[in-house]
Amino acid sequence: MRMEISALQLAALVNGKIEGDPNIKINTFSKIEEAKAGSLTFIANPKYAHYIHSTEASVVLVKSDFQTEGPVKPTLVKVDDPYTVLATLLNMVSAAKPKKSGVEKLAYVADGVNIPASTYVAGFAYISNGATIGENVQIFPHCFVGENVHIGNNVILHSGVKIYNDCVIGENCIIHSGAVIGSDGFGFAPHNGIYTKIAQIGNVVIEDNVEIGANTTIDRATMGSTFIRKGVKLDNLIQVAHNVEIGENTVMAAQVGVAGSTKIGKNNMIGGQVGFAGHIKIGDNNQIGAQSGIPNNVGDGNRLMGYPATDARDFARQTVYIKKLKSLFDDVNNLKK
Amino acid sequence: MRMEISALQLAALVNGKIEGDPNIKINTFSKIEEAKAGSLTFIANPKYAHYIHSTEASVVLVKSDFQTEGPVKPTLVKVDDPYTVLATLLNMVSAAKPKKSGVEKLAYVADGVNIPASTYVAGFAYISNGATIGENVQIFPHCFVGENVHIGNNVILHSGVKIYNDCVIGENCIIHSGAVIGSDGFGFAPHNGIYTKIAQIGNVVIEDNVEIGANTTIDRATMGSTFIRKGVKLDNLIQVAHNVEIGENTVMAAQVGVAGSTKIGKNNMIGGQVGFAGHIKIGDNNQIGAQSGIPNNVGDGNRLMGYPATDARDFARQTVYIKKLKSLFDDVNNLKK
Amino acid sequence: MRMEISALQLAALVNGKIEGDPNIKINTFSKIEEAKAGSLTFIANPKYAHYIHSTEASVVLVKSDFQTEGPVKPTLVKVDDPYTVLATLLNMVSAAKPKKSGVEKLAYVADGVNIPASTYVAGFAYISNGATIGENVQIFPHCFVGENVHIGNNVILHSGVKIYNDCVIGENCIIHSGAVIGSDGFGFAPHNGIYTKIAQIGNVVIEDNVEIGANTTIDRATMGSTFIRKGVKLDNLIQVAHNVEIGENTVMAAQVGVAGSTKIGKNNMIGGQVGFAGHIKIGDNNQIGAQSGIPNNVGDGNRLMGYPATDARDFARQTVYIKKLKSLFDDVNNLKK
Repeated sequence: MRMEISALQLAALVNGKIEGDPNIKINTFSKIEEAKAGSLTFIANPKYAHYIHSTEASVVLVKSDFQTEGPVKPTLVKVDDPYTVLATLLNMVSAAKPKKSGVEKLAYVADGVNIPASTYVAGFAYISNGATIGENVQIFPHCFVGENVHIGNNVILHSGVKIYNDCVIGENCIIHSGAVIGSDGFGFAPHNGIYTKIAQIGNVVIEDNVEIGANTTIDRATMGSTFIRKGVKLDNLIQVAHNVEIGENTVMAAQVGVAGSTKIGKNNMIGGQVGFAGHIKIGDNNQIGAQSGIPNNVGDGNRLMGYPATDARDFARQTVYIKKLKSLFDDVNNLKK
Repeated sequence: MRMEISALQLAALVNGKIEGDPNIKINTFSKIEEAKAGSLTFIANPKYAHYIHSTEASVVLVKSDFQTEGPVKPTLVKVDDPYTVLATLLNMVSAAKPKKSGVEKLAYVADGVNIPASTYVAGFAYISNGATIGENVQIFPHCFVGENVHIGNNVILHSGVKIYNDCVIGENCIIHSGAVIGSDGFGFAPHNGIYTKIAQIGNVVIEDNVEIGANTTIDRATMGSTFIRKGVKLDNLIQVAHNVEIGENTVMAAQVGVAGSTKIGKNNMIGGQVGFAGHIKIGDNNQIGAQSGIPNNVGDGNRLMGYPATDARDFARQTVYIKKLKSLFDDVNNLKK
Repeated sequence: MRMEISALQLAALVNGKIEGDPNIKINTFSKIEEAKAGSLTFIANPKYAHYIHSTEASVVLVKSDFQTEGPVKPTLVKVDDPYTVLATLLNMVSAAKPKKSGVEKLAYVADGVNIPASTYVAGFAYISNGATIGENVQIFPHCFVGENVHIGNNVILHSGVKIYNDCVIGENCIIHSGAVIGSDGFGFAPHNGIYTKIAQIGNVVIEDNVEIGANTTIDRATMGSTFIRKGVKLDNLIQVAHNVEIGENTVMAAQVGVAGSTKIGKNNMIGGQVGFAGHIKIGDNNQIGAQSGIPNNVGDGNRLMGYPATDARDFARQTVYIKKLKSLFDDVNNLKK
């Protein structure tokens, strides 16, 4: 959307129904509360519906059944699912940016490593011996690709990603700046109070369609592999210890920590700053609230919260009870008299 | 203070009053409990006053009304505010270090980017197309400055800072090693258990006089900007999600996490490892204790603590009550009999 | 173990006693539950003993007194301490990998810095003026070694380690990718709501045999040094603030935060995501559970847990009492009637 388009053109593009001026032009996207003239915005959540009367946006994507009290200034474009339509438009704009290809002069690529013509290797990227790099890969400056690392097709490594030797990155993965893949697991043998390092000879395997946030760290396995399964999305500053497995389509918010050898199932939603103990098993389809501590195994389909975590409704009730403890102590003291 | 100065010269410099040997020399700074001969140290907090009898420091900055019981070995220099005087001296020493300028041979600067003569670009720094770089900027090795990034005057980017395209850094900012500015926000549209990426086409705007700690991550907005306002100080390993705003002169200790779209006001003091939920609003002048969890809106001028956070005094009381729960259960069991 | 060896050769190497086929070959290591034919695995914990009947491993290291019910498929090699033997074997394999030496063409080494012939400096590593680098050091791509930094013998700096000027790294240390050593402490003087930076002119001193995890940050002292004593092991994403001291052989799991000037003693075991307040003193031989918050001084030999932390058994009891609060409130209400 570097060029302007009209509400009419937009409606045609997204198969929407226009209410208002079809000729008004848009040239940017905005959140409804910040939108200026020339903006396209959207209302997906009814909580934001009232902004329709104050927004300066030129065009608003709304649901097919959206009703306003009285006339409104912006042009409405009615669609079944405004958020999905908006996301599609954002992705179209993003995809329209030209992609780089070729190896820049200041890059280092070890002898014998093949870089496909469709792939970009920026200056100051370092590709080690024995690495295999797919098609349409984007490797930004200061990335380190260790020996025998495999990078699948269409992967993006943003500036400063570090991948230790022997790790495997699937197709269509995006790894953000400063993420570290394959650092040594935290393994030491204590002997009379002194800790001796145990060599970590495994690797990390990241499957297809995974996104990994900035400065997140994923340790290699002691033996075998640390697994990040298909479709997993990890936010920034997350710690994944050695021999962990994170199941398909599980999403984790920032600063979560997963201790060694813990296995997490599929389609879990994990809030920020949650901590998982080591050597436990988490099932599928759980929702775990922010800052929770998970000391033990968890089954499927739970909503958990707390330190240590418990059922989220029980946690809410406990919080209320704790606030009333003063009156309870007073009551008991009165009863004792 | 690479050269020695005498207590007399120091007193003249800071407009202080000498008690003791005016000719004694100092050549370094130390904390009072660690100070050796040749050190300048200070006492600002009365808790440390007793060290005056044991310290080996040569000169001690003390308050104008500081009294000792009996004679002491070090020379005293009395000033109104020893801590501020010390900070000023530290800053003088630091400022005396020669600043580098010029573009080192192994740097990469895209064609058409102007580097002012006063600015330093180290080897292995990568400055992309369309970037604008101010005067007296220091860009250390392995920094990545993305396309169309603006860097204001007098900014310091320590080694390994990564700034994605289109972000804006104001004047006099200091960004420490490994900090990532402008990585993608954590935005995905779920569909039958699979998450599709929503392009993040906004940016990060950092205003003047901001300091950002090592390995801190600040995500770009989905649309619009993530804002770090004037004078904000962020410690290390902090996560700031997309579309967050952090208000003027708010300070955050290490490992804080702020979830998406949360707006934090001015002059707040946030302890380490605090977590803020997404889409909430925090007012001004709050003090939030370490490791607190903030699930909801907060007004102005509160002292909060806990998970979930509550008034800090209430939290302290609850902690006491929880410790007494055993006796309470016993009391109730006795009453029931 | 790139080459195959037989059970017989292994038993000779580790001084073990064979039960089963002595000619079976092994060529890799695995965890017992994941092992395939050709694998060597081990049983140290009786909880895993039952896998002896289902594993596909070719050889299993077990304790001298290990007994099976009925015949088993893998060959057993009996030793006194299977875990230590396995760790030794892993370390032998790891040590057999050829070590690099020499300065790669794309490295930058400042004039006058001596790189011993046994030391490796990779492309895109930046070694500043006045640095001193020991023998057998491995410096991977994108490391930054600041002015006057000292690196002891046998140190490994993985890709992207950043060490600010004047810091000291002892012998045999391993520092993982993205770790930042010597960034400025978080020191500001408030004045009418505005924070002025206090120059941080101290350094970080890391003693011998320390391992530091990926993306961990250790701030330099305001004056003097931040100390990481001999044998300390720090996991990933840990924050160590200015003027902290961490005592010998203390180990910390990921995402721990230690606030300024706190002194931690020897041989402590600290769980993940624990937070320490500033200006406190922790003794020796404590065990602190994950996510605990430590607001005050701690003596020696405690087991602590909670927020704020308390004795671990008390914390467990409190957790039970809190779960029963509903029935307690009900009881008291009944008693009041």
